[in-house]
Amino acid sequence: MVDVTLLGCGGTMPLPGRALSALSVRCGGRSILVDCGEGTQAAARAAGVSLAKTDVICLTHFHGDHIFGLPGMLQTIANQGRTEPILLVGPAGLKKMAGLLLALAGPMPFAVHGLEITENTKTLPGPGGLAITAFAADHRVPCLGYAFSLPRAGRFLPEKAKAAGVPQRAWKRLQQGESVSCGGREIRPEIVLGPAREGIKLVYCTDTRPCLSLERAAAGAELLILDGTYATDAEADKAQQYGHSTFGQAAALAAKAGAKRLWLTHFGGALENPAAALPAAQAIFAAAEAGADGKQITLTFPPERDLCGAERF
Amino acid sequence: MVDVTLLGCGGTMPLPGRALSALSVRCGGRSILVDCGEGTQAAARAAGVSLAKTDVICLTHFHGDHIFGLPGMLQTIANQGRTEPILLVGPAGLKKMAGLLLALAGPMPFAVHGLEITENTKTLPGPGGLAITAFAADHRVPCLGYAFSLPRAGRFLPEKAKAAGVPQRAWKRLQQGESVSCGGREIRPEIVLGPAREGIKLVYCTDTRPCLSLERAAAGAELLILDGTYATDAEADKAQQYGHSTFGQAAALAAKAGAKRLWLTHFGGALENPAAALPAAQAIFAAAEAGADGKQITLTFPPERDLCGAERF
Repeated sequence: MVDVTLLGCGGTMPLPGRALSALSVRCGGRSILVDCGEGTQAAARAAGVSLAKTDVICLTHFHGDHIFGLPGMLQTIANQGRTEPILLVGPAGLKKMAGLLLALAGPMPFAVHGLEITENTKTLPGPGGLAITAFAADHRVPCLGYAFSLPRAGRFLPEKAKAAGVPQRAWKRLQQGESVSCGGREIRPEIVLGPAREGIKLVYCTDTRPCLSLERAAAGAELLILDGTYATDAEADKAQQYGHSTFGQAAALAAKAGAKRLWLTHFGGALENPAAALPAAQAIFAAAEAGADGKQITLTFPPERDLCGAERF
Repeated sequence: MVDVTLLGCGGTMPLPGRALSALSVRCGGRSILVDCGEGTQAAARAAGVSLAKTDVICLTHFHGDHIFGLPGMLQTIANQGRTEPILLVGPAGLKKMAGLLLALAGPMPFAVHGLEITENTKTLPGPGGLAITAFAADHRVPCLGYAFSLPRAGRFLPEKAKAAGVPQRAWKRLQQGESVSCGGREIRPEIVLGPAREGIKLVYCTDTRPCLSLERAAAGAELLILDGTYATDAEADKAQQYGHSTFGQAAALAAKAGAKRLWLTHFGGALENPAAALPAAQAIFAAAEAGADGKQITLTFPPERDLCGAERF
């Protein structure tokens, strides 16, 4: 189960009633925060999201609307008693920018580690069993998108466990993916589990033009949260120039990727009513929605299908 | 005429619906901003205050809730086409902190000058004829309060101008405080003006314990905007410990200073309903009010009184 909250949906500058685009991803009681613009901590509070259990902060890039809230957010969670270390992830330049942000924030009661991603794609373990995959976006400066995946092991097959002579008391550990020792032999979980089942994948990518690495990362995602800085096709030239996307481009990408849902975010300041521009995007990808401050969803494992295609109740 | 807007009234961290304490002072179409916490630019927008014509930014001190909004605010006014230089004023340590804040903000299309105040009190010219007086507050770190004064020259006395032989076409310049040349002589405005009249004084001071320098600066002010981090007398020990004031302490100071109005601000996060705690402060100083985000007043020159004490219409 993954709790997803879009903390804000604006770009460039914080507006009254529209916080800057940022995302909270919560799994197993711990969180990942993507971007932290000016006002993100207040937006989180308004959405009922605590940032105190944030273990990883993924920064897309270093434009101010994505990072200027970080010193205040770190001070706030320090005041809330946070002591566990935090991992900062970001593109090339992270060390220099983190140096400035942390110098402003001052000494913290927790360690802050940094991981600068310079590869085109890199996967690292996140909290609650989530895998975090950073991939190159296409903006005017080095910029990353992030995919968050919660894998799901195959179904436990008791008949195979019995055949392998595994006592019932060890079944749970195998179910949880651990190997067990049995009569001097090591029994690996693959032996007693069916094929891996479909997990959960969520992708957040802004600021970006449509690009191949995003298309690849987005394939089959349960939820895409994508750059929708410009509402209309008429603004495609501006989107290209400034390294952003239109609603239509994001919708086309979601359709091509076979995603289940699309939330548009990072609306430009001139875009007062994103919902009004939505029908054109929905004509391309029916499950397109306008992001909103505090928009939430809980993603669960998709229902399984048995061999004859009937849905499991 | 001085337009005063309290942009926020909170302390420590920005909350939904309560921005961090900051002040806009506008005179003659140009502005001074006091403090710029995370969210100050959005609060200004919500209050209908443009920050693009800010010529002076007065920082009280360098705790995050007073400065973390500065990089974003500077970027926003740069995007709005600002090119005129800005003066940053602050206590000891300004150069170092401004270095970090400006490095984060990146190159600006305007010059940013800094004036580090290490004296106990210092007056400098501000926009629109305002005089800015920085004075030492009493916080846990070097901290300044600010008085903003708009002086008012004496009334123009036509009979004295006639007696001095000043032609009527030159009267306006004398009225405006300029000297004029007349028949080879320099006529100074003092000759044709009555005694200086009461001007406007506004004082903003947070974060601070009650102190003598604030008392002195506050004397006779039209409006005091003071630290009211704690509502009750029972919290006086905490106020002392953390370098703040209670409502009662601020009210007592306003009464002693003979101020006309008091707005309390910089409410602690635990103080949910400042208005509920106001009656006790009003028992000490009747014109005490709770600050609120976007609270505005236009201060005008006080009505003049002629010799027999009748009010001028």
